[in-house]
Amino acid sequence: MVEIARRAGVSTTTVSKVLNQRPGVGEKTRARIQRLIEQSDYVQNHAARHLRKGRSGLIDLVLMRLEGGYDLGIMQGVQEVLEQSGYRLVVFATNEDETTERLWLRRILDQSSDGVLLLLPYERVGIADTLLEQGIPFVAIGDRNEPTTAFPTIGSTIWLGGYTATEYLLSLGHRRIGIITGPLHLTTSRARLAGYREALEQAGIAVDPALICEGSYLLGDGIRQTEALLDLPDPPTAIFAGNDAQAAGVYQALYRRHIRIPEEMSVIGFDDVTYSAHMAPPLTTIRQPLEEMGRMAAEMLLRLIAGQTLETHHVELATSLVVRESCGPPRQGPLGRGNS
Amino acid sequence: MVEIARRAGVSTTTVSKVLNQRPGVGEKTRARIQRLIEQSDYVQNHAARHLRKGRSGLIDLVLMRLEGGYDLGIMQGVQEVLEQSGYRLVVFATNEDETTERLWLRRILDQSSDGVLLLLPYERVGIADTLLEQGIPFVAIGDRNEPTTAFPTIGSTIWLGGYTATEYLLSLGHRRIGIITGPLHLTTSRARLAGYREALEQAGIAVDPALICEGSYLLGDGIRQTEALLDLPDPPTAIFAGNDAQAAGVYQALYRRHIRIPEEMSVIGFDDVTYSAHMAPPLTTIRQPLEEMGRMAAEMLLRLIAGQTLETHHVELATSLVVRESCGPPRQGPLGRGNS
Repeated sequence: MVEIARRAGVSTTTVSKVLNQRPGVGEKTRARIQRLIEQSDYVQNHAARHLRKGRSGLIDLVLMRLEGGYDLGIMQGVQEVLEQSGYRLVVFATNEDETTERLWLRRILDQSSDGVLLLLPYERVGIADTLLEQGIPFVAIGDRNEPTTAFPTIGSTIWLGGYTATEYLLSLGHRRIGIITGPLHLTTSRARLAGYREALEQAGIAVDPALICEGSYLLGDGIRQTEALLDLPDPPTAIFAGNDAQAAGVYQALYRRHIRIPEEMSVIGFDDVTYSAHMAPPLTTIRQPLEEMGRMAAEMLLRLIAGQTLETHHVELATSLVVRESCGPPRQGPLGRGNS
Repeated sequence: MVEIARRAGVSTTTVSKVLNQRPGVGEKTRARIQRLIEQSDYVQNHAARHLRKGRSGLIDLVLMRLEGGYDLGIMQGVQEVLEQSGYRLVVFATNEDETTERLWLRRILDQSSDGVLLLLPYERVGIADTLLEQGIPFVAIGDRNEPTTAFPTIGSTIWLGGYTATEYLLSLGHRRIGIITGPLHLTTSRARLAGYREALEQAGIAVDPALICEGSYLLGDGIRQTEALLDLPDPPTAIFAGNDAQAAGVYQALYRRHIRIPEEMSVIGFDDVTYSAHMAPPLTTIRQPLEEMGRMAAEMLLRLIAGQTLETHHVELATSLVVRESCGPPRQGPLGRGNS
């Protein structure tokens, strides 16, 4: 690639754009570079192979774990678009292991891939940088990926979700609302919390730091932090969990203490994964439009592959409130067994 | 293929075996057929293309829905084996739509696939017959697929699972055990029920037909059938659900009636999907070794692709009891609110 760039008198980025049929190169320059590529014996390069042999018809989706919930919702949307387009969806889970992530990345470069959908944080083992370098089109999806101008990212309106959840609980009459967050070094965890704060402030209610518990989006957080909230001198009447897995943990802790949902404690989740409607009682939650996010990501990737320009490098789809059976008016009086 | 078979003086099955490097053909015959294939202009055929151009490195997994639970566990095992082997896993969900199933099948034949893993019933739109005809190696997995001698199938010891679940409840002292089954036209649904009957008979307890409720492995069955069981003049003290989704429905029905698990009602599930441990209280269930089934299926397929012989065409892996918190001794006296 360096050699071709030198001979054409352009940057390697320009060569990469031509190799991947991406926009931003003038017609004459494109033609000159393409001729040089054809002439050169540049056979090892993955992208050049594509240009010569045609597309592989494969799109690679990489995710952290095949565990259902969040990622699966996105995959459903992706699959829907690809089913119509004729592309085949290659799936790989790295289990958050760096060696496996490197293995996957090496294979993506060695084998043919028309484009990549990243459901894991793009900065891991320099995935985004490598894909950019190699000129492989990709889109990063989900709330573990922060917006950037270097490539397209897709998320949802997390802050608004946090605001909506809290506002809904306030509308039911709650004044002491506990919140269990994700890790606060993540922007999207802080966005939920900021939405919560904003709704409370709008309602003229002071934020009580004792009601804010940090977690890691795991079931175990939900159990532990609920215990902590229940042991406060003045426990909350509602709990807002950072995701539905944490909400499942809240349910378990409450069940052990014989505290009824929603009669004695309201619980609201975040994400709306497949099993949220299966919980007892069915979970009221903030829906992330996972399928729509997957669909949009796949559509954007197909446009990149086709060499089209995207209007924007970051899209956020709207979160919404899904009312089921886990929220009600606040209990009157203290928490007590069977107080329903 | 017919033409080559005619010229080689063998059956089309033999030609298909050679095309796919499967065993069961003598060395000389194999060489003769291979020469004929090389000479012929048999270019349309997918398998011949492989033989000439080398493998695609792709394995196609087709399933009914990307919904988590059962299929996802199997996919995890498959992915584990393929990750090590260097094959890429192509995933497709048909959403139980026949048109989509035909679309998928057509694409599998048009595009290159080294082998197929079927997580949907193999008789749907004649999938198994077509793959056999085309000589594409495949393995059918899971309890929607019945054993056959025509190709490998992988399941688990369902009957034993039904027996173990019932025996466990009996060992806790239960004598009236309700069972919610899958559709009884499926062998695997009848296997669970037969295991239940056997355990009761072994314990000298007469089977009460009123305690046997048919469902379709859906959450809604769990709700409806639990209502029916609770409305019996002499309701059961324990409920055995045909899968974990049904068990989630049992939980919801019991929660609505303020009946505590396990103090007033024991509940046992079947499958041990990801969310079973997330339920409140965590579900005691019969574990199907989903990951192991996926691993074994992938390993068998790789051996078929490599032209090796399999010892057997059907494997059942062992189910096991996973004790969590949803079963206990039977309640004393009638069901009542807060009777815990």
